[in-house]
Amino acid sequence: MVNDLIAGVAAGLRPGKHNVRLADIVTKLQAASHEQAAEMLLRMPDARAVGALDRPEFEAAPDVLALLPLHRATRLISEMSQDRAADVLAAMGDDADPILAALTPDVRGSLDALLAWPADSAGGMMTTEYVSVPAAGTTVARTLDHIRTVERSRETVYSVYLLDEAGVLVATVSLRRLISADPDSLVIDLARGREPVTVLPTTDREVVADLIRRHDLLAVPVVDDARHLLGIVTVDDVLDALVAEHTEDAQKFGGVEALDRPYLDTGFLSMIRKRAGWLSVLFLSEMLTASAMQHFESELERAVVLTLFIPLIMSSGGNSGSQATSLIIRALALGQVRLGDWWRVALRELPAGLVLGGILAIVGIARITLWQKLGFYDYGVHWPLIAATVGAGLIGIVTFGSLCGSMLPFVLQRLGFDPASASAPFVATLVDVTGLVIYFTIALAILSGTLL
Amino acid sequence: MVNDLIAGVAAGLRPGKHNVRLADIVTKLQAASHEQAAEMLLRMPDARAVGALDRPEFEAAPDVLALLPLHRATRLISEMSQDRAADVLAAMGDDADPILAALTPDVRGSLDALLAWPADSAGGMMTTEYVSVPAAGTTVARTLDHIRTVERSRETVYSVYLLDEAGVLVATVSLRRLISADPDSLVIDLARGREPVTVLPTTDREVVADLIRRHDLLAVPVVDDARHLLGIVTVDDVLDALVAEHTEDAQKFGGVEALDRPYLDTGFLSMIRKRAGWLSVLFLSEMLTASAMQHFESELERAVVLTLFIPLIMSSGGNSGSQATSLIIRALALGQVRLGDWWRVALRELPAGLVLGGILAIVGIARITLWQKLGFYDYGVHWPLIAATVGAGLIGIVTFGSLCGSMLPFVLQRLGFDPASASAPFVATLVDVTGLVIYFTIALAILSGTLL
Repeated sequence: MVNDLIAGVAAGLRPGKHNVRLADIVTKLQAASHEQAAEMLLRMPDARAVGALDRPEFEAAPDVLALLPLHRATRLISEMSQDRAADVLAAMGDDADPILAALTPDVRGSLDALLAWPADSAGGMMTTEYVSVPAAGTTVARTLDHIRTVERSRETVYSVYLLDEAGVLVATVSLRRLISADPDSLVIDLARGREPVTVLPTTDREVVADLIRRHDLLAVPVVDDARHLLGIVTVDDVLDALVAEHTEDAQKFGGVEALDRPYLDTGFLSMIRKRAGWLSVLFLSEMLTASAMQHFESELERAVVLTLFIPLIMSSGGNSGSQATSLIIRALALGQVRLGDWWRVALRELPAGLVLGGILAIVGIARITLWQKLGFYDYGVHWPLIAATVGAGLIGIVTFGSLCGSMLPFVLQRLGFDPASASAPFVATLVDVTGLVIYFTIALAILSGTLL
Repeated sequence: MVNDLIAGVAAGLRPGKHNVRLADIVTKLQAASHEQAAEMLLRMPDARAVGALDRPEFEAAPDVLALLPLHRATRLISEMSQDRAADVLAAMGDDADPILAALTPDVRGSLDALLAWPADSAGGMMTTEYVSVPAAGTTVARTLDHIRTVERSRETVYSVYLLDEAGVLVATVSLRRLISADPDSLVIDLARGREPVTVLPTTDREVVADLIRRHDLLAVPVVDDARHLLGIVTVDDVLDALVAEHTEDAQKFGGVEALDRPYLDTGFLSMIRKRAGWLSVLFLSEMLTASAMQHFESELERAVVLTLFIPLIMSSGGNSGSQATSLIIRALALGQVRLGDWWRVALRELPAGLVLGGILAIVGIARITLWQKLGFYDYGVHWPLIAATVGAGLIGIVTFGSLCGSMLPFVLQRLGFDPASASAPFVATLVDVTGLVIYFTIALAILSGTLL
């Protein structure tokens, strides 16, 4: 993708010669050491520094701000968009305290309100810089006048929110609807005859993203239980949330706790911590494979030839399981499949597993037959029985893997966990242990009296 | 997430009592059979049917449209937003031909232009329904008038595009800037002194999403090589593209070719085809494990105890490899790591692998010692050497897995592939085969003269 990106930049994106884009400044700041970045920020005019700090891609912002003189850091924080300023302060931890203390009570009050919500909730993503007008009696012309006076100080104006005297959200009116309307008409008459889509401050960012996407909104209002307007979540923050969610899911799927910083900025020890936990859990569960093998030790000693196919059979089970898991996790996340659909999924995965296992069984049996006939390897006089064992084992394990892999996300969701934590390695471990038992049970059934 | 969604809907989202939302209609249409959905569409007024068809979540739209009478289908397609209509027609395949033939030459012309580009490029995502005015001499007031007259027929008006006489894009002006400006001023004077961010129709959807996100745009203009404006890609389409990309990545990571339809709507045979290919490729590569095991058969026969730990050691290598892969794939996708950074990554993964392998080695050695001392299992008189073999094997394989897993995405990207295709099972297979060789080589070094 980066290759495409560079090509895209070279071909489609022709930046103006004299104006450095904010996005490029941020790239430079991110690439520099924290000390260098602080130097660069100090030399920038406030407006540019604020613009750079406002970008979520400037992930080193909390560390860099901590290096700036207090008065400058405080001024920059005051001028940043409030939702981003709250995120940066939250990431600064104790370093934020002197800045918070130096802020004017006004700014500090609204930042405190934002800091109260978790970063991955609507409350943590929202900005309080929306445009609102009284619902009763306001004309379109007055609304447009109001927008003109506040436009510069608001992060984004896509819609105007109509409030009653108590601050309760009555309706939303989009900018383009305002422009097209008769200036003398009442703005409340432009609102469609339905209540606006809203979220609570505690609503999860994934749900917010889903609502914005499904209703093609540019911003969604955040209201409290009494429908008082608290703030808005804008589409640009939702884009960033979707990308963060994507990263988190990919890392969970790979069996890593989500990193808080970009890969190269994550400290060595913190990186080890994020990985060692899951790796050890998987290792401890995988130890059951050694126990399973020990259980079948006498069979192993009598027929060492069986061990040759253990890695092959185990990995096929793991692969079919991770296929099923990745399909179902996304189908659940997108709402294409619901909890109650588990039996429909099971009814599809059972025959799918049988067919996929059958395909691999044919390939596996062909491989053994070929090697035996061509003299590449001698599996002994009972080689057709061994081929049959491997074939039957593959069918059993791939079917079991598909079923396990598809059902685990349902189980996790039912228990209240994120189904994405049913990461592929977890399924693989589950399937490995049971797969060995399936394989040896089939071997006993087929080979008992001959090899075993 | 679906649980949260339902809770979110119940708590935060209070739909108006009398108005059914389009998103809800789409949910119903998706849940119904194609025949039922066609019936429902037939009974809806055109505006509502068009609204539903316009939603990308209505994934059955191509199948349902094919069941409608030709004259109705044609009318609906004509009234749909052009980018979505083009996507639906493309998905209908041959079924689209009678509709295309029945369209007016105008509509057909612009749809043909959109159908020419791949669905995952800017050209395939763009709409031609943008608002443009001549760059020279147009006042703000005239521009606003123009917007008022066309507002109803345009999907989204976020910005106005200023074109010269040849249709070349000169500048973009946002709606909120227009509103705040003096009506008598020239619109060209509102454009900032820099060329607008643009993309080519061939630009990949991921790049488009990244530009929109990094520059906080609501729409990005699509231009040809001579900078003629061809269309715009809007933020709502980008949100959909990001979600589709997320799904595709998750499926690739799970070793499945991306499905074209939701899980439950994908035909059984098509599902088998999407999975059997990768599963067979992985199976064939994994056959090398059988070859590796055959190579060490005499060692296996002399020390069956070594086989007990094969699944444990192989899976640890696979897990550490998939951790590293998932971290690097996302870091590359987000531009946090670039191709030239491969050596910095390798310099981190080498010590990380050693430490992680060391942790697992301690656990593994403790397990063997404990089982031996407590009498759970007898690993023979040479058990300390076996424990040492397992420990050294774990360090070697986890280090190798971390290195392989982190370097493979770089190699794939360098070769021009999507690094996301370095799916976890692929890395696991690679690490399985080499892991066995590492394990047996270490065993030979440590145990030769005693067990081997």
